[in-house]
Amino acid sequence: MLVHLNEDAPIWFGRAQDAKAAHITTDIPAHNIVGYSEPLIHHPVGHPFDELADLIKQRGWSSHRIGVEFDAHYYTARCHHHLVKGLPNATVSDCHELVNWARLVKSEAELVYMREAGEICTATMNRAIEKIALGVPQYEVIADVYHAQIMGVNGKFGDYTSLCPLIQVGEGTSTPHLTWTDDLIPNDSLLMMELGAARRHYHAPLTRTIYVGKPPSEVVDLAQVIVEGVDAALETAQPGATCEQVEEVWQRVLNRNGYKKESRVGYSIGLNYPPDWGERTASLRPGDTTELTEGMCFHFQSGVWLDNFGAAVSEPFVVTRNGGQRLCDVHRGLVVID
Amino acid sequence: MLVHLNEDAPIWFGRAQDAKAAHITTDIPAHNIVGYSEPLIHHPVGHPFDELADLIKQRGWSSHRIGVEFDAHYYTARCHHHLVKGLPNATVSDCHELVNWARLVKSEAELVYMREAGEICTATMNRAIEKIALGVPQYEVIADVYHAQIMGVNGKFGDYTSLCPLIQVGEGTSTPHLTWTDDLIPNDSLLMMELGAARRHYHAPLTRTIYVGKPPSEVVDLAQVIVEGVDAALETAQPGATCEQVEEVWQRVLNRNGYKKESRVGYSIGLNYPPDWGERTASLRPGDTTELTEGMCFHFQSGVWLDNFGAAVSEPFVVTRNGGQRLCDVHRGLVVID
Repeated sequence: MLVHLNEDAPIWFGRAQDAKAAHITTDIPAHNIVGYSEPLIHHPVGHPFDELADLIKQRGWSSHRIGVEFDAHYYTARCHHHLVKGLPNATVSDCHELVNWARLVKSEAELVYMREAGEICTATMNRAIEKIALGVPQYEVIADVYHAQIMGVNGKFGDYTSLCPLIQVGEGTSTPHLTWTDDLIPNDSLLMMELGAARRHYHAPLTRTIYVGKPPSEVVDLAQVIVEGVDAALETAQPGATCEQVEEVWQRVLNRNGYKKESRVGYSIGLNYPPDWGERTASLRPGDTTELTEGMCFHFQSGVWLDNFGAAVSEPFVVTRNGGQRLCDVHRGLVVID
Repeated sequence: MLVHLNEDAPIWFGRAQDAKAAHITTDIPAHNIVGYSEPLIHHPVGHPFDELADLIKQRGWSSHRIGVEFDAHYYTARCHHHLVKGLPNATVSDCHELVNWARLVKSEAELVYMREAGEICTATMNRAIEKIALGVPQYEVIADVYHAQIMGVNGKFGDYTSLCPLIQVGEGTSTPHLTWTDDLIPNDSLLMMELGAARRHYHAPLTRTIYVGKPPSEVVDLAQVIVEGVDAALETAQPGATCEQVEEVWQRVLNRNGYKKESRVGYSIGLNYPPDWGERTASLRPGDTTELTEGMCFHFQSGVWLDNFGAAVSEPFVVTRNGGQRLCDVHRGLVVID
């Protein structure tokens, strides 16, 4: 996507066979939808960015200053090489996550989708919790999760999420980001699930910790501390507070109870595509002095991973005058299935 | 992932909080699992690749020749910048898709997964076909597709696929790669669905064209020509034939019937992760002189997109002495739902 300071509409640049999809699904003017030649797909020498450079030249912009998101997931080293080679008179520099930073504060229209994503995520997590039981294979839980993500709520369907659902069982709860197997859920087992829902590609992610059987006190205690920490942090998440202040409130509750969390406790969320539903801008962590304003959205990822187990009771939230308002409404604490 | 010519095991390099997942899910020796510092996540100045460069220095490889996949999806321009800056004495060059080329011919063990993926894909497409009917919202078909993808066949569950299921309806069939809406499937409508299934991350993708109502002759004719072209091409896909020869046989059938396909008609498939189930190596297209050998796997993507509609009856296949053997077994032709 090319965006020019003095142009009203962006320019879509992509594979020729996908140009028609851009005509059908966007309101970009026809002359701003430009396909590249099919032989450049996975070509050993040529590259689509050769024709992107040509396009920029044709528009008379070949000696302009061009900001590019150098760390965007699909802006490969080879893309960069071909762009720079094709535009020797341009000044190509890293604009960092410029567009994502511009999207940090959500409009009212965007918040409608964020809340709808939250509703779908709530329904999806509750469906997972309903399915989880002694002897059920992990993948059957995940199959239901996917079904619920797309079915949505009250006819408001879901889109594909940027990240697949995640499930950790037993010792696996001592780490995040595992996917499913065909292992059966055993008795007296701890599970952690992280999953999102997407509405018009706006994401609400959520984590819950589930115990099948009678939970040991160390698990109950950790979950309680996490919930206390989340509550305290969300209360702090008002306009004017900084990202690091919110993290500090959370970390203080943890430390007082003998725990700590090494990794950041949250990140900005919004419109996204695979492989990440985070916006890669503001993070709830020490050193991030971004000031919160109404309409920012975060995933408060309160996972604490100890040596042999872990727990998380995370919440996606929107910053309001009254603090962080939850986008989901799932039981806030350890879920016990007996 | 670092692979050194003289080392027995690869080195996993990733986010510190994910190192434990690498210990749990791989057999990489513990000293070859290296996490990078959490503060480098989405850091405006520092980058994980700073520590990757440090790791390479620590191993004594800082003045070696290092091949990097410059066009790998997540090897961003910024990754490259930080790697090169951190290793001023190394020779860093593009090894193109070296690992994927090495994976072009599948082993017997890999073919087991490819065939299982084909079985899951068959079951998934059949479930979609069962669900498609007048008045059903598109997203309900997709919800069932996701459920079937994960449930798999006979306890052999599916993994997440590299690409979401795709559905085009009506004029939308004149382009590939659309996703679902809440539109109801109308009577006398043409649908195209492209979807994959993954078994242990090995992918089998498939496309089918469906008509709800009594299909017009132009649609029936196009589908018939496509099936004829696929049959002829798969017969040709024997060891010793080249990629471009297979395409030529297909294109000849099309041309004889007044059609043509601009885009390549197939690409190598195998183990993959989002955002693409193709291996980005050999393509079935003019100019690709890669010689087929037993065990290579392709998706024969026989989509023909005309001005107002299109059709595809694609097949994933494995190269055998008897030609291309299909990995899926779904009705080979236009599916009519009356």
